[in-house]
Amino acid sequence: MTVSQPQGFKYDQVSRYINELIEKGDLKPGDKAPSLRKLSKQLGVSIATISQSYVNLEDQGRLTAKPQSGFYINALADQINSIPKSASSPRQARRVRFGELFEEVFRNANNPRITPFGTSNPSTDFMPLKSLTRATRSIISRYPQRCMDYIFPPGDRKLREQIAQRYELTHTRVNPDDVIITSGATEALSISLRTVAKRGDIIAVESPTYFAVLRMIEQMGMLAVEIETDPVTGLDLDALGDALDTMDIKAVMASPNTSNPLGCQMPEQNKRELVNLLAERDVPLIEDDVYGSIYFADKPPRPAKSYDLNNIVISCSSFSKTLSPGHRIGWAVAGRYHKKFLQYKYAWSSATSSINQLAVAEFLSSGQYDRHLVRLRIAMREQVEKGRYMIAKSFPESTCVSHPHGGNVLWVEMPEQCNSIDIFNRALEVTPGILFSATRRYKNYLRINCGNPWNQANEAALKKLGEIVTNCAETR
Amino acid sequence: MTVSQPQGFKYDQVSRYINELIEKGDLKPGDKAPSLRKLSKQLGVSIATISQSYVNLEDQGRLTAKPQSGFYINALADQINSIPKSASSPRQARRVRFGELFEEVFRNANNPRITPFGTSNPSTDFMPLKSLTRATRSIISRYPQRCMDYIFPPGDRKLREQIAQRYELTHTRVNPDDVIITSGATEALSISLRTVAKRGDIIAVESPTYFAVLRMIEQMGMLAVEIETDPVTGLDLDALGDALDTMDIKAVMASPNTSNPLGCQMPEQNKRELVNLLAERDVPLIEDDVYGSIYFADKPPRPAKSYDLNNIVISCSSFSKTLSPGHRIGWAVAGRYHKKFLQYKYAWSSATSSINQLAVAEFLSSGQYDRHLVRLRIAMREQVEKGRYMIAKSFPESTCVSHPHGGNVLWVEMPEQCNSIDIFNRALEVTPGILFSATRRYKNYLRINCGNPWNQANEAALKKLGEIVTNCAETR
Repeated sequence: MTVSQPQGFKYDQVSRYINELIEKGDLKPGDKAPSLRKLSKQLGVSIATISQSYVNLEDQGRLTAKPQSGFYINALADQINSIPKSASSPRQARRVRFGELFEEVFRNANNPRITPFGTSNPSTDFMPLKSLTRATRSIISRYPQRCMDYIFPPGDRKLREQIAQRYELTHTRVNPDDVIITSGATEALSISLRTVAKRGDIIAVESPTYFAVLRMIEQMGMLAVEIETDPVTGLDLDALGDALDTMDIKAVMASPNTSNPLGCQMPEQNKRELVNLLAERDVPLIEDDVYGSIYFADKPPRPAKSYDLNNIVISCSSFSKTLSPGHRIGWAVAGRYHKKFLQYKYAWSSATSSINQLAVAEFLSSGQYDRHLVRLRIAMREQVEKGRYMIAKSFPESTCVSHPHGGNVLWVEMPEQCNSIDIFNRALEVTPGILFSATRRYKNYLRINCGNPWNQANEAALKKLGEIVTNCAETR
Repeated sequence: MTVSQPQGFKYDQVSRYINELIEKGDLKPGDKAPSLRKLSKQLGVSIATISQSYVNLEDQGRLTAKPQSGFYINALADQINSIPKSASSPRQARRVRFGELFEEVFRNANNPRITPFGTSNPSTDFMPLKSLTRATRSIISRYPQRCMDYIFPPGDRKLREQIAQRYELTHTRVNPDDVIITSGATEALSISLRTVAKRGDIIAVESPTYFAVLRMIEQMGMLAVEIETDPVTGLDLDALGDALDTMDIKAVMASPNTSNPLGCQMPEQNKRELVNLLAERDVPLIEDDVYGSIYFADKPPRPAKSYDLNNIVISCSSFSKTLSPGHRIGWAVAGRYHKKFLQYKYAWSSATSSINQLAVAEFLSSGQYDRHLVRLRIAMREQVEKGRYMIAKSFPESTCVSHPHGGNVLWVEMPEQCNSIDIFNRALEVTPGILFSATRRYKNYLRINCGNPWNQANEAALKKLGEIVTNCAETR
């Protein structure tokens, strides 16, 4: 694999403009796209660039070229069925039991030969490999002794300052002293959970929810209650309110900004209400914000933490989806649970890798991170669009696909007779939907990672997956 | 701080020879050491080297120079009282409660200005900084993409092969598939504990025991029962047998090879009996072997794991005391608990840092590790001897000091009226003994780390500590 950036990066201005016209409704499926000459004048960009950009948009499924006529807005991607809100299920706290299923799915996680639609991070092809490598090598050369020595919790001061500063981008007040560095967001989430709840306690989660969250709840002997989650606006506050009124819920774990797998985003007003609802009842919110920086709108969404006047939100995030999965640098801002969180961090794993803390701090302070994020957001948006287009082309017609507000995964509802475990057994690279609920309700769903550059191999794999699903749908 | 190796490294042949004569009894306190000329002939080493070596041994407290006469074996270090076996306490399972004490003690852990008698690792001055830095930079340059990507549990294959191979040095059969990489030994130990026990369960530990073990037990809501531990031969098997017969003990956590803080070592036969005792009752042993490679005898002690025919031992260790604390690379070989351990590792923190896994694997496969360990063992032995000498010189006469078989810490019993918390408040760099028991019985004990190169500042700090202790002993 090369370290060069994917093609899409170069033509973002044109594709962005066209996408905006489509979104505003100025261009509709079937309409002719602006002529090359006209757009060239309007944007002040060469005809060659516009032309190349149109070819890319065609490749992404946004445009269709008609010989001798020009480019037209493609109807396909916009005609995919959206995921319907799932019917409310009898709400009950459940003990999570994945058994061996989880290991089965993860057995192939380290196998580079399997096309990874299965993980949930943008590929390192989209990461600033060169500059991060340079930063990492540089701190090792400059501070060999610091790199080899412990940096005990709460972690490196400079890194915590950089993280606190980044919260300012979303008008969220965080002091460097509030930040605790962890080994990825996974550790931040699992320590959070342990900090606010114990064996037998009930935790409210989104439905569907990130399986690692269910896995933690299972391993800690807690119970999960799944709250209806709208594919567009996220956690259903009425449903959550009902659950809080009728059950002894000890904590809520959610991703208000970009849920995994739905990609939905709570409107700002809903996030504020969510925090108030919980503050009234003194129930902590464990906020998983790992996709918070990969948003597709113009302005960054605010984390629920930014509405947290009562310090009941534990904000967890990491650099694993945006900079480097392998560095394993995450953090928590634990509000009123800070002290207890810190005690658990000491007891569970003590210090976090020094090289990695220092390297990420170095990279952040170089100012390159924001420029990288701009490119990453555009790239992921295009990756996801292309994924939707590919699915529309090769899956059965009745398939529904999510329309994410951010992140890089798609949530796919297949015809009812398709079993995601059967599909998984024939195509190891997807994540079966059944993992995203303790009640096993998402049997005919798949999560598909669009975080890997589309190339012949990936496209062929997705096409083949479509055939398998079509086959399943027909033979049963 | 410089990265050069401490002086002691150069003269190990001579000091080793003299130390052996002392240990065999061929040289006794008060005897005259061999003349420079005689030893030069015997060892085939220049008189200048022998002379420099004798000055070093004098500095370490092994020899005393008498003007116009020569060097004599110093009685001081050998006359220090040994730690007596602690009187057996009423054996009871206790809930551990450190409260804020632990944070208090660790508040200064990241402060480089405080002379660190408080931590328990050899300083990075004794680590192969240059070659490990080189290995780390090299893998980042050669595999930038792998370094940035996840390496999911159980971890990097090459690293697991290297670790499995190293077990062969102690005739312990371990397959690479048995090894699970963790973020330091702390994570290995805490996941082990969680794997075999739950809230309310009773865990048997050594007395005194490493406070981080008690801390884990506290955080998991378990109970600790402290088993008498001989300062020379370690865990008292009769006492353990009694406890197993009368209490529902769910696991034993111990360091049979080099306990922390006592530095004691169980005889091989005792280790075998320990494993058999537990196998009969199906009680797992969580073996903390982080100091296993820093032994002072000629042959490596075998881990209890090597006697484990029934797969009930979880062997936990790391490279934090022998190579780099900051890399945070530890591991567990979990025997029959392997699958469950792996499930917890996924749920708690998932992948471990890729750079660090690959860098340590690279360093191990270069073959430099064993050469480094030879030097490290000699250095730690000298460091500890020097520490004993310094304490003999500056602490009250009735002070007792441990005589460790390995590692780098000393366990110091002060006169009864000395309170280790008072001492700690006046000398932040020590670890108060009270942390090493759930029953707070080691009030008048201190643990002192000898892992930092002795220099004017350290010696002055230890001298001052001696004055504080003397003062305490007299005024109360």
